[in-house]
Amino acid sequence: MKERIAIIGCGLIGDSWAALMTAFGHDVTAWDPSPRMTADFETRVDKARKQVWQVMPGARPATGNLTLAATLEEALANVTWVQENAPEQLGLKQELYAQIETYVSDRVIVASSTSSLTWSELSIGMRHPHRLITAHPFNPPHLMRLVEIYAAQDDMRARSVAFYAGLDRRPVVLHRDAVGHIANRLASALWREAVNIVAEDIADVSAVDAALVHGPGLRWSVMGAHMAYHLGGGEGGMAAYLKHLGPSQERRWQTLGSPKLTPEVCEKLIDGVAVEAAGRSIASLALERDDALIRALRAKTQ
Amino acid sequence: MKERIAIIGCGLIGDSWAALMTAFGHDVTAWDPSPRMTADFETRVDKARKQVWQVMPGARPATGNLTLAATLEEALANVTWVQENAPEQLGLKQELYAQIETYVSDRVIVASSTSSLTWSELSIGMRHPHRLITAHPFNPPHLMRLVEIYAAQDDMRARSVAFYAGLDRRPVVLHRDAVGHIANRLASALWREAVNIVAEDIADVSAVDAALVHGPGLRWSVMGAHMAYHLGGGEGGMAAYLKHLGPSQERRWQTLGSPKLTPEVCEKLIDGVAVEAAGRSIASLALERDDALIRALRAKTQ
Repeated sequence: MKERIAIIGCGLIGDSWAALMTAFGHDVTAWDPSPRMTADFETRVDKARKQVWQVMPGARPATGNLTLAATLEEALANVTWVQENAPEQLGLKQELYAQIETYVSDRVIVASSTSSLTWSELSIGMRHPHRLITAHPFNPPHLMRLVEIYAAQDDMRARSVAFYAGLDRRPVVLHRDAVGHIANRLASALWREAVNIVAEDIADVSAVDAALVHGPGLRWSVMGAHMAYHLGGGEGGMAAYLKHLGPSQERRWQTLGSPKLTPEVCEKLIDGVAVEAAGRSIASLALERDDALIRALRAKTQ
Repeated sequence: MKERIAIIGCGLIGDSWAALMTAFGHDVTAWDPSPRMTADFETRVDKARKQVWQVMPGARPATGNLTLAATLEEALANVTWVQENAPEQLGLKQELYAQIETYVSDRVIVASSTSSLTWSELSIGMRHPHRLITAHPFNPPHLMRLVEIYAAQDDMRARSVAFYAGLDRRPVVLHRDAVGHIANRLASALWREAVNIVAEDIADVSAVDAALVHGPGLRWSVMGAHMAYHLGGGEGGMAAYLKHLGPSQERRWQTLGSPKLTPEVCEKLIDGVAVEAAGRSIASLALERDDALIRALRAKTQ
């Protein structure tokens, strides 16, 4: 179904969503209170949309219209879906929802891209709290297929899953809302140990990153961690793994570190990543990442 | 340089190494005390070698000879390199090294594929402890490029890095030996939270795996965790990230779980992975994984 979508917040997440949604034929109206965010918005959207096309399965639909609205009210006129990408401040988002609810009809879903806030916090004070869902994309959202969804009602959940699946995303459903959803909880847990390895002088920043990219990262790009241990159990699968190696995993968990981001540790991380970057700018590294992601995504559908 | 290599231990790691090393032109003699392990060894090596060829860069060299030796002494005759893949039992490996040292010349490196033991433990009692290195591959080693190396002496480290790089591996060097090296420490840290999310009913096993595969796993297959946070800092890089978001990461770390593998949690994991496997056997899942890894590896070198 073609939706009329309001993108609220025109930063890095907003331009990504706009590129993806228009590439799949939806009409989008975007709004941001800051002229700095809207100034080059359409250029950024065009650039990201070209990347979407590189990994788009099937025939390319007619591109949806993209309109920059002058006001929030204008952006929300006659929309059927709102994707909110405002800064991660609870009060600011709650105020925004109060305004949004005055402008849109009761059937409109308000999807928050929030990475660090939860539905339970965000929905407080809403007239129709169940119209709010969290739909957290993984950066950059126009390339990464993951969307983590929490919806408090079955029908909202089903509508959301169908909507994001229609954008060739891979919606993943949470039973309970949790800080960091799933992916950022996993990323945070891994990074804690990645920091520990550097803090404890076991290995350099670049060695840790190379070990991840050429080892577990590559494996996890094709198979999840639970499934990998299922295979690790041989013919007996996860049950055999847990029986034979569960106790040693529990012992291993005890040996993992709890680093603090002290000035010394921060200096090691900053210096180490500078060595790894080897003079490449952030923009150049992001471009390399996107190119590699596009190759990896195309390989998956070959 | 062409090496004459002894593969000691003909299980899943041994056949993988033999496939890779012969594919790169080295002559290999393999030995295992168990006839069950040697029975179909050559068939397994042939199968894995075909997969190596699918991802091999450049021209394919003449395949090295593969010989099954009847005794350890025979396997070690005139070799220049030993790759040991015995079961993960400290005493067993130490006894094996004592025997190996009686058969090989002083210049021969003994490389242990150990995943869970450390150089400090393994080298105890050796006549030439510095000839021992740990060279931990990531399963399946004939496809995954990571080899984690700890060597106690500079010249041994340099020889080892050159040897594995010559097999198109990506050697990563540890400054200190640590249980789980780098990759399995990261994997263990991530899995602890993956188990926690299931234990706490935040999401299903299959949702956690899908979130990883389509989110951080894919990203980590092209960019390490430290580098990803460097980009997360925008123009200011890691320094800006740590300044603005370091404190929130430290708070996030406090909210991560410390699950126990209780019977109830184990049941959830076993049932959840069965739902995800949807009737596919371990062998079929492993084949899918290998096919996907081969596509991903080929995409990286396109």
